[in-house]
Amino acid sequence: MPSLSNSLSCVDFCFKSPSVRFLLSLAIIVYRLPWTWKCSKLLMKSIHAGLNAVAAILAIIALVAVFDFHNAMNIPNMYSLHSWIGLAAVVLYILQLLLGFLVFLLPFAPLSLRAFLLPIHVYSGLLIFGTVIATALTGVTEKLFFALTSTGYSSFLPEGIFTNTLGLLILVFGALIFWIVTRPQWKRPKEPNSVLLQPNGGSAEGVVGALAVNSDNHGDKSDLELNSEVAARKRNFTLEDAGQRSTM
Amino acid sequence: MPSLSNSLSCVDFCFKSPSVRFLLSLAIIVYRLPWTWKCSKLLMKSIHAGLNAVAAILAIIALVAVFDFHNAMNIPNMYSLHSWIGLAAVVLYILQLLLGFLVFLLPFAPLSLRAFLLPIHVYSGLLIFGTVIATALTGVTEKLFFALTSTGYSSFLPEGIFTNTLGLLILVFGALIFWIVTRPQWKRPKEPNSVLLQPNGGSAEGVVGALAVNSDNHGDKSDLELNSEVAARKRNFTLEDAGQRSTM
Repeated sequence: MPSLSNSLSCVDFCFKSPSVRFLLSLAIIVYRLPWTWKCSKLLMKSIHAGLNAVAAILAIIALVAVFDFHNAMNIPNMYSLHSWIGLAAVVLYILQLLLGFLVFLLPFAPLSLRAFLLPIHVYSGLLIFGTVIATALTGVTEKLFFALTSTGYSSFLPEGIFTNTLGLLILVFGALIFWIVTRPQWKRPKEPNSVLLQPNGGSAEGVVGALAVNSDNHGDKSDLELNSEVAARKRNFTLEDAGQRSTM
Repeated sequence: MPSLSNSLSCVDFCFKSPSVRFLLSLAIIVYRLPWTWKCSKLLMKSIHAGLNAVAAILAIIALVAVFDFHNAMNIPNMYSLHSWIGLAAVVLYILQLLLGFLVFLLPFAPLSLRAFLLPIHVYSGLLIFGTVIATALTGVTEKLFFALTSTGYSSFLPEGIFTNTLGLLILVFGALIFWIVTRPQWKRPKEPNSVLLQPNGGSAEGVVGALAVNSDNHGDKSDLELNSEVAARKRNFTLEDAGQRSTM
């Protein structure tokens, strides 16, 4: 059934790994592009959510296409490690998207919930990205063994070398995104118009910074001093500040 | 040649992935075990280096054994994506170990070099760990297709389900280490006897904290204020402080 096979290749290329990985990585680093720092936080959060939503839709289209293809070709579904990791990534991604939308984009979530979920949101975003990279690498590995074993994958066919190189480049791409996302100099600066609600006039930046994976600097204070400051501020911070670090 | 094959399984089990992953992860999180905070920084750095050295030796033994096995069985070397990623991980690991030993453990490196290399050391340590996880997952994938395709991997053999579960657990293990390493509350507290060299009496913590992947908190100051502070302190900090954040 070559036409179905060709259709799947098209789905693979257009909807599955490359575009989903690209959109997901763009959504992760969107706050870290310096030319976006002049845009409002709400706009950036909407772009972040929009990119993730498009990536999730493409991932679901690809997943449905794969199941359809397997069913049409009488290939069992969900038996390989690649499929297990991939399905786990998609399920986690959809949960992350829903939770992020409800808690960080809509204005209804209490600030304490935002502060509690923020480090989990940031961590799980990076974890899902890592899982997507792992899914791609196991997928490339099994595709190579499916397609090239009979024709000589082990004798260094050009197709094999080309696809191995693609796999390495996927890893390098993941490493690059991880580098961008952990550099303090590319962190979006704090909004200048943050409103301080707490009586002592301190900023709420500390608490969210303390919880975020990639918050970066601290000044002269020791960890213990900062911990007590953070605890004191946990009860008092602005919506603006809670939104400030809701993602990368 | 079953005895050679059994020997390789033994090498696989004893020297290769599980023990290397375990030692590498232990070396990564060793500063974050609260009961080690009372130990001196030099001791912890030596333990960190020692664990990494043992893991690197085991990885090299495993690599030599795999090449020997392939040669004895007339299986080509280095044709699969798994082997490419795995060799890249081992080469990067050895470079990281040598560089870390020369720069952060021996007392000869200038402080400016330590400050420059520290964020790269921390980042590349986590990247190598991620690459080791990716190597394991691609290795499990190709092993399953080698061993079970003819006997029915796609018909949900118990061995297939067991090994897929093992693959998922490797991913969960990686996620757990990544969680531990990015939590601010498990960060080793600053040494109380740090000596301040700079004229204005500030601590040097800021510069290294600003460079480290997983530094966590900052106080009331804005990012811009911190950036200027960091720039001002970059020229003046103690050996103690530079060593303080040399790894996790």
